[in-house]
Amino acid sequence: MTSTPIPHIESLANPTLAAALQTRIDQKTKPLGALGQLETLMLRLGLILGTEAPALQEPQMMVFAGDHGLAARGVSAYPSDVTWQMVENFLAGGAAVSVLARQHGLALTVVDAGVRHDFAPRAGLEIAKIGAGTADALEGPAMSAAECSAAIESGRRLLRERPGNTVLLGEMGIGNTSSAALLLARLTGQDIRACVGRGTGLDDAQLQRKTEILAQVLDRHPEAQAPLEALAAFGGFEIAMMVGTVLQAALEKRVIVVDGFIASSAVLVASQLQPAVLERCVFAHRSHEPGHRLMLQALQAEALLDLGLRLGEGSGAALAWPLLQSACRILAEMASFASAGVSEKSE
Amino acid sequence: MTSTPIPHIESLANPTLAAALQTRIDQKTKPLGALGQLETLMLRLGLILGTEAPALQEPQMMVFAGDHGLAARGVSAYPSDVTWQMVENFLAGGAAVSVLARQHGLALTVVDAGVRHDFAPRAGLEIAKIGAGTADALEGPAMSAAECSAAIESGRRLLRERPGNTVLLGEMGIGNTSSAALLLARLTGQDIRACVGRGTGLDDAQLQRKTEILAQVLDRHPEAQAPLEALAAFGGFEIAMMVGTVLQAALEKRVIVVDGFIASSAVLVASQLQPAVLERCVFAHRSHEPGHRLMLQALQAEALLDLGLRLGEGSGAALAWPLLQSACRILAEMASFASAGVSEKSE
Repeated sequence: MTSTPIPHIESLANPTLAAALQTRIDQKTKPLGALGQLETLMLRLGLILGTEAPALQEPQMMVFAGDHGLAARGVSAYPSDVTWQMVENFLAGGAAVSVLARQHGLALTVVDAGVRHDFAPRAGLEIAKIGAGTADALEGPAMSAAECSAAIESGRRLLRERPGNTVLLGEMGIGNTSSAALLLARLTGQDIRACVGRGTGLDDAQLQRKTEILAQVLDRHPEAQAPLEALAAFGGFEIAMMVGTVLQAALEKRVIVVDGFIASSAVLVASQLQPAVLERCVFAHRSHEPGHRLMLQALQAEALLDLGLRLGEGSGAALAWPLLQSACRILAEMASFASAGVSEKSE
Repeated sequence: MTSTPIPHIESLANPTLAAALQTRIDQKTKPLGALGQLETLMLRLGLILGTEAPALQEPQMMVFAGDHGLAARGVSAYPSDVTWQMVENFLAGGAAVSVLARQHGLALTVVDAGVRHDFAPRAGLEIAKIGAGTADALEGPAMSAAECSAAIESGRRLLRERPGNTVLLGEMGIGNTSSAALLLARLTGQDIRACVGRGTGLDDAQLQRKTEILAQVLDRHPEAQAPLEALAAFGGFEIAMMVGTVLQAALEKRVIVVDGFIASSAVLVASQLQPAVLERCVFAHRSHEPGHRLMLQALQAEALLDLGLRLGEGSGAALAWPLLQSACRILAEMASFASAGVSEKSE
């Protein structure tokens, strides 16, 4: 498969900076480790941004939307039209992610990566359509190798065009828990039955049917073993475009705030191409979708929130956002034992 | 024991309002239940504030501080002086809760409920000292019945004097995980060994010693079975004062955002006096302290965050605060299927 070469993404390993950050954290007026995962987050943000005083600037919430040929097989509880209708809802300010982006001052961009609908151009919308929905993965690959490359390239470009040092990833696409489950199964060797979930709300019989269809899709593409081949075989356009955004953001050493199951599937693909991508990621929440737990395990990642969310859109990333800001503020503003005149632990 | 009578706190049960809120939540443009715990939170905030459009006003972060006679027995890794030093740090703006309160625009009040130190009066500090630290609970009750009543009464008064419809509870007191563990053990019948934790950072031998001391304290007070008797026997002043604040806030139908293990122990006492208190509480985070899991189970409560925090101060409550705001904003601002023209689930 041809694809635009991604420069090698280097590890952020920096023992000197890591030690300086850890010392700074440990000297804060609190018992050692008492801020739990927030301390891990401080260390990570410091290493990504290459400073003892990380500050998050001009955060970009990017929501990638695409349609899925497989949706016609009945793998989702909602009709495909909901994809474009929700894009309109994002842009009109009425969706969960719109409300949360407003609450937290996140710049919201909705990306048409391949929705089966023609949108009128407007502010906040990037029309970067690769096609009018992917093909049916049960009949052939969801997209061609060329489409997959084009999607990745567009994802890179869209990120390059945006300011700031932080990107939050969300998505919308009726049928895309199927793509995520297929990528998880193929790229980590998990049994598809453990990777499939109810998505937007399937009942037991529908879940059974989804599982059977996805098992057939896997059987249909025995050759799609490598990350980009699997991505092309299983889709979707929005996931492929997120792969490009993740790679470019990692290359530019931006903080990547990963939403739920679908956004994580893009990180899974990207990290198999360039493992150091993972050092740039903050996983916002653990989805209610059962495959997400397996995916986070495969990525050796721990999520910040565990609120039983299963909405996507970037809603989990937006909800976790204040925790990232808190980590930076605590690092910058909290007193040390010495500066505050507080006694240290008795020995 | 004599104590100021608390008027009966009524249940918020309101099937009509609950149904209206649930309908409103279900009509939002998202799959049913897809916002997980945030939906439970929307329902709770609506019921507490008695409206389909809850709005949180003038949130008050109250941090109650007190010293503990038992601390001299070596139940904490830090010396008692850290209590007053941290009060100074809160007021100077350098503690975690100071930083987080600033970040989120929470009015911060530090309450001297019984610190062994004389503070200079200043803005943001309420000197409501019941005594210069509690007595050693291994020798007698931590406080007298009269002191316990006075602390509860002060807690009620301090809440009454504050504006707004939401209070966030935090605390500081070297030795107070011991009081919380004792209250948990006595009031729920748990084995003290399951209730004790490392607090600010005890090693294995120190933890063993703390457990032995707390078992002796329990044996020393076989008569302290009822909530207020247990509270007086085991302390501390800051916990007793929080009990008063919780009761008054519940009476006034304010939202009570409960920090970690110690703040929850005050809710445990208050809820055994007036069970409907629990309907007003939002549990912000599950502490790393092992007893907190048992306490939340006893209160049939689920916490919003689980970040491995074990700091107290109200830091967990402050970190969870944006989630409460998100719940209100989503309820107010998110579109419905009808208003946004989005198709509903296929049948």
